[in-house]
Amino acid sequence: MLLESLRQQVLEANQEIARRGLAPHTFGNASGISRPGIDGSGRQPLVVIKPSGVDYATLTPADLVVTDLDGKIVEGHLRPSSDLDTHTLLYREFPQIGGIVHTHSEFATSWAQACRPIPCLGTTHADYFHGPVPLTEPLTAEEVASGYVRNTGVVIIRRFRQDRLDPVAVPGVLVAGHAPFAWGKSPAEAVEHADVLEYIARLAFRATLLNSAVEPIPAHVSDHHYRRKHGSKATYGQR
Amino acid sequence: MLLESLRQQVLEANQEIARRGLAPHTFGNASGISRPGIDGSGRQPLVVIKPSGVDYATLTPADLVVTDLDGKIVEGHLRPSSDLDTHTLLYREFPQIGGIVHTHSEFATSWAQACRPIPCLGTTHADYFHGPVPLTEPLTAEEVASGYVRNTGVVIIRRFRQDRLDPVAVPGVLVAGHAPFAWGKSPAEAVEHADVLEYIARLAFRATLLNSAVEPIPAHVSDHHYRRKHGSKATYGQR
Amino acid sequence: MLLESLRQQVLEANQEIARRGLAPHTFGNASGISRPGIDGSGRQPLVVIKPSGVDYATLTPADLVVTDLDGKIVEGHLRPSSDLDTHTLLYREFPQIGGIVHTHSEFATSWAQACRPIPCLGTTHADYFHGPVPLTEPLTAEEVASGYVRNTGVVIIRRFRQDRLDPVAVPGVLVAGHAPFAWGKSPAEAVEHADVLEYIARLAFRATLLNSAVEPIPAHVSDHHYRRKHGSKATYGQR
Amino acid sequence: MLLESLRQQVLEANQEIARRGLAPHTFGNASGISRPGIDGSGRQPLVVIKPSGVDYATLTPADLVVTDLDGKIVEGHLRPSSDLDTHTLLYREFPQIGGIVHTHSEFATSWAQACRPIPCLGTTHADYFHGPVPLTEPLTAEEVASGYVRNTGVVIIRRFRQDRLDPVAVPGVLVAGHAPFAWGKSPAEAVEHADVLEYIARLAFRATLLNSAVEPIPAHVSDHHYRRKHGSKATYGQR
Repeated sequence: MLLESLRQQVLEANQEIARRGLAPHTFGNASGISRPGIDGSGRQPLVVIKPSGVDYATLTPADLVVTDLDGKIVEGHLRPSSDLDTHTLLYREFPQIGGIVHTHSEFATSWAQACRPIPCLGTTHADYFHGPVPLTEPLTAEEVASGYVRNTGVVIIRRFRQDRLDPVAVPGVLVAGHAPFAWGKSPAEAVEHADVLEYIARLAFRATLLNSAVEPIPAHVSDHHYRRKHGSKATYGQR
Repeated sequence: MLLESLRQQVLEANQEIARRGLAPHTFGNASGISRPGIDGSGRQPLVVIKPSGVDYATLTPADLVVTDLDGKIVEGHLRPSSDLDTHTLLYREFPQIGGIVHTHSEFATSWAQACRPIPCLGTTHADYFHGPVPLTEPLTAEEVASGYVRNTGVVIIRRFRQDRLDPVAVPGVLVAGHAPFAWGKSPAEAVEHADVLEYIARLAFRATLLNSAVEPIPAHVSDHHYRRKHGSKATYGQR
Repeated sequence: MLLESLRQQVLEANQEIARRGLAPHTFGNASGISRPGIDGSGRQPLVVIKPSGVDYATLTPADLVVTDLDGKIVEGHLRPSSDLDTHTLLYREFPQIGGIVHTHSEFATSWAQACRPIPCLGTTHADYFHGPVPLTEPLTAEEVASGYVRNTGVVIIRRFRQDRLDPVAVPGVLVAGHAPFAWGKSPAEAVEHADVLEYIARLAFRATLLNSAVEPIPAHVSDHHYRRKHGSKATYGQR
Repeated sequence: MLLESLRQQVLEANQEIARRGLAPHTFGNASGISRPGIDGSGRQPLVVIKPSGVDYATLTPADLVVTDLDGKIVEGHLRPSSDLDTHTLLYREFPQIGGIVHTHSEFATSWAQACRPIPCLGTTHADYFHGPVPLTEPLTAEEVASGYVRNTGVVIIRRFRQDRLDPVAVPGVLVAGHAPFAWGKSPAEAVEHADVLEYIARLAFRATLLNSAVEPIPAHVSDHHYRRKHGSKATYGQR
């Protein structure tokens, strides 16, 4: 069986989605990528992803599907997640990332449905996302018809290019009228970011209801917090 | 004992209502139907339904009540759910359905009390309900006096006829000032639809508060999602 | 030990407050009354109430305090609930009731703090409360100074007299800027009413946010629902 | 090992933060202080605080860090909480307090992000906080640059001085755009205050949405409630 360690990580990330309540039913999925440049095997990059519509509780490592970056199945007896083409596109376009998590977590999805980016209203947000959690444009009729899932990736990439966003500093996005995607350097970090995204969505929801004119925190605070946890001068945790 | 297998399914659907927290106290009930055209027995259609006001935790298959489509008790020593006449009318009018669930789940009931249909604001909604979750009109004084429970079914049917809705594509409804009903091809699917209805009610509640002018997602997206899970070209899950 | 059976009922009602999450910390209490006219003992009426500030988890029947209707301790080694004088006044004025529960349950307390009665927006409400859940006036400075706890009972009674409310048909109230009280024919029914009150407070909160102009359900519906569960023509449950 | 008993209290307060759900991930910390004037040892005051970024579940007494009031580590092999300088400043300025808890509890943090103090809308609030829960000003760019964490303490102290607040009567604060701090005479009381603060933040959030013009409760009520639990004439509990 290929990629046993990565399979285990992806399995655990999928189970963590369920354990944290980020996706009711089977509305969510996690994947991970093995990149030659990272593991030194000289192999082509391979993606490990959850199979479609399978309950998190019964998933085993062998149920996971291995594909290449074009979505071609390399190993697996089940159909991959219906969101596979979004994952592979993000892996191609964001070479820094090692894991992706898609959820329908309640508050982040509510912001996506409201078609509003989540403003940075506090330091909890700033510790993880540099600036607002961005929102894609809705897919056009043509984009839906010509490849709905791949074009979900396309609108994400377009948002990051238009706003010159760094996927390391902004590890997630809201797809308009749909739900969030989050990512990280590993499947475990991706699910942590998905969970923090839900948390800051809850805070921002209530803050916005309490004060509809609330302003984002000043850049001197958000920059400080972001640098506190990221980069060579980080001061948080046991480093 | 008649219909042992269906009794078991209806029992489990009632327990699932409690397990998912869809009805506090005993404010909910599930039923199922055995249709001759389905099970080939040549018998008249028989409905299995929860008894009235009995705690979900102590229900046994033998407690369930079997009635005909006119609500006449065929087997059972307890009084059937006080909502029986709504169930039997829906079974008569929607020949495609095999199970019905009535809940007082919190957010769906809040929309019913607010007298607003739930707009389709996202793909989670579109995967299960084609278009908004409809809202009935309130019962008139005459309808209340002449048969409150049966007329609850009548206002549901009227909404579906007036709006030319397909009960397979729209597997649930909000009764104005009351609470939701959901249905499916089996009692298990009915309770799944009741649970998804609560979930999309939560998302739409928060999205509406965040953006009171939010528009439903475009038809090209909702149609795509609905077809993704339904019909011969479905691509979701392990089929 | 006096009133062993009633002590057990009051203990269980207090534990039920905690189990249902109706009062964080020790912000709640339940009591019951033994009325000569009810138990035929010829004794004066005696109230059994929770001691003040004691954790629900460690309460025993012997910890409960027995007082007369003037609040004089008849049996007990602990100080009674600081809300005792409200309970005794309600027992004197509402001879139909056998148990009282005071909670700080979250949504009912929020309505009390917002100084709004809870309108009857749905049938769940109508099954238990005939008309809105009433709101007292705030206590005046003089009422606070001359007997805060007793006067909390006085403003409750005043609301019921002014609006000609029947405490059987309206088994609870919101004290403005404070929290709810609920009652019933027994301590167990009082805690059930406190729990339903919290539930309908949650529904009405969300319905009101979704539709600030929402109207109460028509009297022909609320009357029907109230009579469905109360009085000689009740049709709900296994009677 | 220094201060074994205080280490145990601080450990339990940190675990209580997690048990009560007041801080997701590791977004929270508790500390305690040993003051010579209190324990009579003649030693300099010593602070015991959680290490930075360590999971609550795996914390042991030996993991806690002991510092002096300037934040110099006296005992400990781990880096102290990144919020240490806020704690030490509060201990220097508020000599009455023995424990401090910092959380990111959801509703209190939402008020902090909305940049609104929490008005005293009910008696639950008044039992613990005399007047509103105050809000600091945001840190200026210079304050962030010259010592972010210490200056978080500075803006708290400034708010208490400007408004002439007593830290015993007002045992907590919201840092604008950040989150709450709470304190008490011990680490256990600090975490209780942090928990009550979250509870009253939830009540006030909903009351404010139900009635945006709601007024604080009158001073004659809030004074009565505060005195009921504090000072020599307290009547609540078993004293």
